Amino acid sequence: METAQQKHNPALIIKPGAPLATSVWHHHHILDLDDFTSEEIELVFHTTDAMKEILARPIRKVPTLRGKTVITLFYEASTRTRVSFELAAKNLSADVVNLSAPMSSATKGESLIDSLSTLQALGANIVVMRHPESGAPYTAANYTEVSIINAGDGWHAHPTQALLDLYTIREHRESLKGQRVVIVGDIMHSRVARSNIWGLTTMGAEVTLCAPHTLLPTGLDSQQHHFPQVNIEPDIARALDGADVVMALRLQRERQQSGLLPSFREYIQRYQLNEARLAKAKPDALVLHPGPVNEDIEISPAVAHGPQSLITQQVTNGVAVRMALLYLLAGGRKL
Amino acid sequence: METAQQKHNPALIIKPGAPLATSVWHHHHILDLDDFTSEEIELVFHTTDAMKEILARPIRKVPTLRGKTVITLFYEASTRTRVSFELAAKNLSADVVNLSAPMSSATKGESLIDSLSTLQALGANIVVMRHPESGAPYTAANYTEVSIINAGDGWHAHPTQALLDLYTIREHRESLKGQRVVIVGDIMHSRVARSNIWGLTTMGAEVTLCAPHTLLPTGLDSQQHHFPQVNIEPDIARALDGADVVMALRLQRERQQSGLLPSFREYIQRYQLNEARLAKAKPDALVLHPGPVNEDIEISPAVAHGPQSLITQQVTNGVAVRMALLYLLAGGRKL
Amino acid sequence: METAQQKHNPALIIKPGAPLATSVWHHHHILDLDDFTSEEIELVFHTTDAMKEILARPIRKVPTLRGKTVITLFYEASTRTRVSFELAAKNLSADVVNLSAPMSSATKGESLIDSLSTLQALGANIVVMRHPESGAPYTAANYTEVSIINAGDGWHAHPTQALLDLYTIREHRESLKGQRVVIVGDIMHSRVARSNIWGLTTMGAEVTLCAPHTLLPTGLDSQQHHFPQVNIEPDIARALDGADVVMALRLQRERQQSGLLPSFREYIQRYQLNEARLAKAKPDALVLHPGPVNEDIEISPAVAHGPQSLITQQVTNGVAVRMALLYLLAGGRKL
Repeated sequence: METAQQKHNPALIIKPGAPLATSVWHHHHILDLDDFTSEEIELVFHTTDAMKEILARPIRKVPTLRGKTVITLFYEASTRTRVSFELAAKNLSADVVNLSAPMSSATKGESLIDSLSTLQALGANIVVMRHPESGAPYTAANYTEVSIINAGDGWHAHPTQALLDLYTIREHRESLKGQRVVIVGDIMHSRVARSNIWGLTTMGAEVTLCAPHTLLPTGLDSQQHHFPQVNIEPDIARALDGADVVMALRLQRERQQSGLLPSFREYIQRYQLNEARLAKAKPDALVLHPGPVNEDIEISPAVAHGPQSLITQQVTNGVAVRMALLYLLAGGRKL
Repeated sequence: METAQQKHNPALIIKPGAPLATSVWHHHHILDLDDFTSEEIELVFHTTDAMKEILARPIRKVPTLRGKTVITLFYEASTRTRVSFELAAKNLSADVVNLSAPMSSATKGESLIDSLSTLQALGANIVVMRHPESGAPYTAANYTEVSIINAGDGWHAHPTQALLDLYTIREHRESLKGQRVVIVGDIMHSRVARSNIWGLTTMGAEVTLCAPHTLLPTGLDSQQHHFPQVNIEPDIARALDGADVVMALRLQRERQQSGLLPSFREYIQRYQLNEARLAKAKPDALVLHPGPVNEDIEISPAVAHGPQSLITQQVTNGVAVRMALLYLLAGGRKL
Repeated sequence: METAQQKHNPALIIKPGAPLATSVWHHHHILDLDDFTSEEIELVFHTTDAMKEILARPIRKVPTLRGKTVITLFYEASTRTRVSFELAAKNLSADVVNLSAPMSSATKGESLIDSLSTLQALGANIVVMRHPESGAPYTAANYTEVSIINAGDGWHAHPTQALLDLYTIREHRESLKGQRVVIVGDIMHSRVARSNIWGLTTMGAEVTLCAPHTLLPTGLDSQQHHFPQVNIEPDIARALDGADVVMALRLQRERQQSGLLPSFREYIQRYQLNEARLAKAKPDALVLHPGPVNEDIEISPAVAHGPQSLITQQVTNGVAVRMALLYLLAGGRKL
């Protein structure tokens, strides 16, 4: 598909060497999207455009982060996200060190804070961190001068995934404003959904959450006055009616064991994003999924691999969005 | 030893910057040697000569693959082969990412095809893949546009090992044509032997396979019309008589448990490559082994470390051959 | 604190491009400090000054080791030390390969010597090695031409840690000569203590070892004529009286199980470095610890994070000292 950005905003494709208008950027860390303004998100989009131009070159490498050290610190396995960051950093010529466990062996009992102050003393500039506990990156950011990027914390937030989702939608639409985005699936346990709600509403999209009651965050109804643009609609046919964008979430297999789901079979019958259901949305509705996909569970293979699916494009855009974020955190020096 | 190549083919040592005659090259993947012509194998040799010249420089690095991403994807542990590819790619200035497991954790159940399409979307240019199942790299090559290099699949093929074996022999002989090469050991389970048979016969060598009947591939006799240059000779004294090259294969310890071997002791008595047996071959016969060596089992320490052994040279040549293959897959751009 | 080096030796800060007086350097390996002269240790200090100047630049990278391969080979986990070496090597533009296990899988039974000769054949220039057995790096150095750096072997030696300790002290003192250094804790099992004793006495410092008798090396009294500058004083108050430098050692939790300690509680009561005890030392006494720190056991949090503590600075200096050592091993080519 030709993208809206390419059609309408040629001036936004920043030429190498040209300065980006980075004055609106005020982040030293990227922890969640709740403290991002729409101007900052637009800046991420424009910087990502510039990064995609770099990725299209025969030699896909610029010296922006030469002599800088990016550490990936993953307390939870996710090769996919880690490699996306690793390649983003290497494309910018950073040195990358991958750590999959605490700085010293678990038996040595060094804490998160100790690990981060050691990484800072070793010269780390940016730490990309995934942690099973919600809030851990905030603790890290409080106790270190290193820039922290939250690459997923518990059920809480996954801001770089949300930014790549937003960017991918925006590549195909003139604007996110007024887009009707339906998020289907296990909202309760989804850090992806949470960060997307912040980002999408900030950009003026209307969000509908669609899930069985057991997979919706408790207390969401009472908090709804904070999110006037967020609706809840447990009936998928009504939720998808007229949607511009449909985002299916990964269903963790352990949810069934915990009793939150009667059975996969029932979930599939009532909530799987399949062709019949997708037909309720607008004809050119975009389909997103944060991956990895459980085909035949939350999404049918025909939809996952169909013409409306942007799942592969999300993965590709992820590298460019993360390059943009590393660039902006490093001070937006010349490309 | 002075090498035949150095003595006879000075013109083949390509100077940096000079274009290689890469027009005979038609591979997008390297899966096995059964689809390599002798011209292609000669091109690999000549390109390897150029790479060895680079490795002899004080600064052992050229920008050939700068901005390209090489992923090593090993579903089976082999530090030795992985590091050989990793150094080859880094010598050519590629970015290297090592993955030792499926893209997402096994519990997430992402398939090989999913992993490869994710790697492609992330921007991988070349995936070096080892897999316990024969044929897995073919599946990968069918479903992705990324270049696949087979770094060993089950009992099937290990083409880069065979190419380094061929190159190492050819460094010491004017030509592979007419060389009498004896492969001794567990032929049945050896991907190294299989790829070497294809490569050696393509280059006009005569191959003799020597093993107990239980360690020979079943049905080989009936297929022998395909390989008129391949003989089977279970008696090692007769097999080695007048040989130009002897290649000992690694004997996996688990073969005994599976009942294919009466005992290591009997294997050693009948098949170990020792000095007395090597004396049957030509006086300057070359000794190869794909490593790692089980000393005192398939080969005696005196032979493994003796003057005819090229085992260390094979390891060194492996880096240069893999540099050549990465270079050729990347389109043979200037060194 | 302003450092003595900055105050007194401005000429020692070598400008990039200026040659270092590396003629006193004669090491091909770094195994321990027992064969280092004071001139060599001074050279390490001066080279480290130059490296710190590089680390203070906006782009923290020089091409000194471009095209060279540094392998970290850790048979014992220590992310902290490994990352310190990895960053040091990358700052000098080396290619780094991290190996955390023997070259081939343990089940393949390849020995240390086999691993090293494979690494040499693959093109490794420097191998940084940690091993649980005392003496293993010496075996490695005997059987390979690759430069070996001992990153810790059993209870024996940890020379790069000792050099960073010495450098950190020297940053705050005009000279190490005559400094009264007290090492408190589990001397018996400490490779850090052993290497520090060699380095400190070579530089003219006076060393006092302070520990319960069960944690002192056996036979130390009888060897004391070798170390006239080394005293033993089990009473911590007397040991610290008038000290210039106090180095607390990590207490391994397994020491209690082995019966060498009555209890942690008793150790803390008698040997923990706390504010009251530190007050016995000189008012500006420096506090060091090789890390990771067991707070509340061998050192109190107030002292570990207090104004006299140089623990974080040790980590930072570790990268610079290791850059200096890699540079010197590589022949001290231009920065």
